[in-house]
Amino acid sequence: MTTPVLAFTVQEYDARIAKTRRAMEAAGIDTLIVTDPANMAWLTGYDGWSFYVHQAVILGSSGAPLWWGRAMDALGAKRTVFMSPEHIFGYEDSYVQNPDKHPMQDLARLISAQGWQGGRIGLEMDNYYFTAAAYLSLLQNLPEAKWADANGMVNWQRTVKSATEITYMRRAAKIVEKMHATVVERAVPGMKKNELVADIYHAAITGADGHWGDYPSIVPLAPSGADATAAHLTWDDSELKTGEATFFEIAGVYRRYHAPQSRTLFLGEPPKKYRAAENAVLEAVAAGMEQAKPGNLTEDIAHAFNSTLNRLGFEKDSRCGYSIGLSYPPDWGERTYSLRGNDKTILEAGMTFHFMPALWLDDGGIEITEPVLITETGAENLCNTPAELTVKG
Amino acid sequence: MTTPVLAFTVQEYDARIAKTRRAMEAAGIDTLIVTDPANMAWLTGYDGWSFYVHQAVILGSSGAPLWWGRAMDALGAKRTVFMSPEHIFGYEDSYVQNPDKHPMQDLARLISAQGWQGGRIGLEMDNYYFTAAAYLSLLQNLPEAKWADANGMVNWQRTVKSATEITYMRRAAKIVEKMHATVVERAVPGMKKNELVADIYHAAITGADGHWGDYPSIVPLAPSGADATAAHLTWDDSELKTGEATFFEIAGVYRRYHAPQSRTLFLGEPPKKYRAAENAVLEAVAAGMEQAKPGNLTEDIAHAFNSTLNRLGFEKDSRCGYSIGLSYPPDWGERTYSLRGNDKTILEAGMTFHFMPALWLDDGGIEITEPVLITETGAENLCNTPAELTVKG
Repeated sequence: MTTPVLAFTVQEYDARIAKTRRAMEAAGIDTLIVTDPANMAWLTGYDGWSFYVHQAVILGSSGAPLWWGRAMDALGAKRTVFMSPEHIFGYEDSYVQNPDKHPMQDLARLISAQGWQGGRIGLEMDNYYFTAAAYLSLLQNLPEAKWADANGMVNWQRTVKSATEITYMRRAAKIVEKMHATVVERAVPGMKKNELVADIYHAAITGADGHWGDYPSIVPLAPSGADATAAHLTWDDSELKTGEATFFEIAGVYRRYHAPQSRTLFLGEPPKKYRAAENAVLEAVAAGMEQAKPGNLTEDIAHAFNSTLNRLGFEKDSRCGYSIGLSYPPDWGERTYSLRGNDKTILEAGMTFHFMPALWLDDGGIEITEPVLITETGAENLCNTPAELTVKG
Repeated sequence: MTTPVLAFTVQEYDARIAKTRRAMEAAGIDTLIVTDPANMAWLTGYDGWSFYVHQAVILGSSGAPLWWGRAMDALGAKRTVFMSPEHIFGYEDSYVQNPDKHPMQDLARLISAQGWQGGRIGLEMDNYYFTAAAYLSLLQNLPEAKWADANGMVNWQRTVKSATEITYMRRAAKIVEKMHATVVERAVPGMKKNELVADIYHAAITGADGHWGDYPSIVPLAPSGADATAAHLTWDDSELKTGEATFFEIAGVYRRYHAPQSRTLFLGEPPKKYRAAENAVLEAVAAGMEQAKPGNLTEDIAHAFNSTLNRLGFEKDSRCGYSIGLSYPPDWGERTYSLRGNDKTILEAGMTFHFMPALWLDDGGIEITEPVLITETGAENLCNTPAELTVKG
């Protein structure tokens, strides 16, 4: 059996596990059931598009983590995790999408086999893929256990990136720079949206600077004109039009590490209100970035951003940023801190966030966003994509 | 406000709702909370990459469905659903990923405002995006309600496709044919895997026959050599090698309707065991297809397939197929019937499934699969991709 090519050293995985165990101890949790695929990957190296069936990493208070999932994916685990095969457990295929029995019955058996059935067990209660039915099955099949909500526990251990993680995000940042350059180069009036998105995908997966591109956790979001008032529409074959704005919210990805970045393309001469929005966003982002330094709070960035935006005559009700790093579909945010009022997370060197000052106007949207790294003394944009409304022809 | 360009007529949506209501009545359900994005789309036309926050379609026993989700996505709903805006409800952004309050509190208020709080409410208990926390929040905030597990209820209404749905799947089938042709044309020893996947994506999104390509619910799965023993690994920048097999499990997609299809590429002269596996798979598939006709059962296909495979010296423990149609990440199966022993679903004209006879060998995998339509008299392959192990150079 070939040794997996790990994205990180075993020492780094051990450090992550130790950090997570400190959080478990502080919360009085003996056993953690991790169902978020990004958390599973961060703790063990597990990688594969298998999160459409039930699977988990189980972390007890000592020993290596266990991987548990569908038997065919146990083979994928053997090829990707750092632990040796006796830590990998697969359930029979008859459990898959079978209304008569739930895979969690098998996980319950595994937990009991470890002697962990009477302890306090943490669950990622609001995580995608941890369904209501999975929860009830565990409760039913582990009647002696005491339950705790550990949602976000592992996510929070991931906020400060290691040197290798930062290297991966820099590679992802180069990829998204190339993707935006592709948009600027190829987009012309009359071009069908899906043809431009096909070019964006090609740039994304070929990668940049000798580093290959991984799939993004969110597909390219590229609505035009009035569709751009709706943040999460994808694409169709509509033609790009003169006099219309299109925003491209896209990410470069290296080994699941994401550098999301948005730019807005205007074909023709932008109306004054788009220029006014552009100026406002750029000035508000600059004000926010002055607050982006170790020791400050995430809400300091948001307050500086929002008050500047308001002063310039614009409003934004939603958060203006969120933590980024490793992710799997359906989201590239890490679901820890947000840049918004009342979020009092202390900024530390090594944190990475998507500074996302999207503005939705009556008849369109403007997005000029940046993946940002907090450094020892301040903050750094990971990309050098020109920060402006992109205007062409 | 521009009228949405609907993928289906309002009459077709009405028919789907009526069919779903009959199922609700049979189960004694007054109100159905639909959180599966494919089910939401099938009932209302809603489309958008917003399933990473809580959202739902709510179907009462009469009247139009309601759309409920994040306020910024309510704008997307207005642009995509058939219902008028007074049926669309958005919650404040402060509910998003906030440990102190859950969006389901807002949904509970909406349900009470309709007067539905005391009835029997159906929940998609094992759906990816219906989390344990969402479930508990609803129970807590709707204390008078009686609860029912409606997992799969809407999915089962979708198994027999309408004429328009079949048209969309035929368009998707043409796209995946083009994607496989791209593999055959471009793959050569020494080519990096990610560069080939970039070409596959480009073919996928540009589309075929004048029809644009939508994003697949699963990214291309393309493992080579020993990695192909693991079904769900994605890609990296490894080079294609002479003497190695790579399988490509990919889908053409038109307006969210999927035609998945796999082929296996061998560079060089395939070892006898690959040819033996190829022969076995093709003969077993032919035996299965003879059973694929209205009135037979899904297990009849599986039995014919498996017994033929066994007779030829091979075994497959997992199901050999599943229902396909409309889908959103993370899965392109419809999660209703499977082609496996003990699945006694009656085949009907208009059903579409992925006949998925993947065989995993000790040191590789072989996949030669087909999207299939049950017709009035039998079954039809939706694609005309050559059914064979693809051998090059």
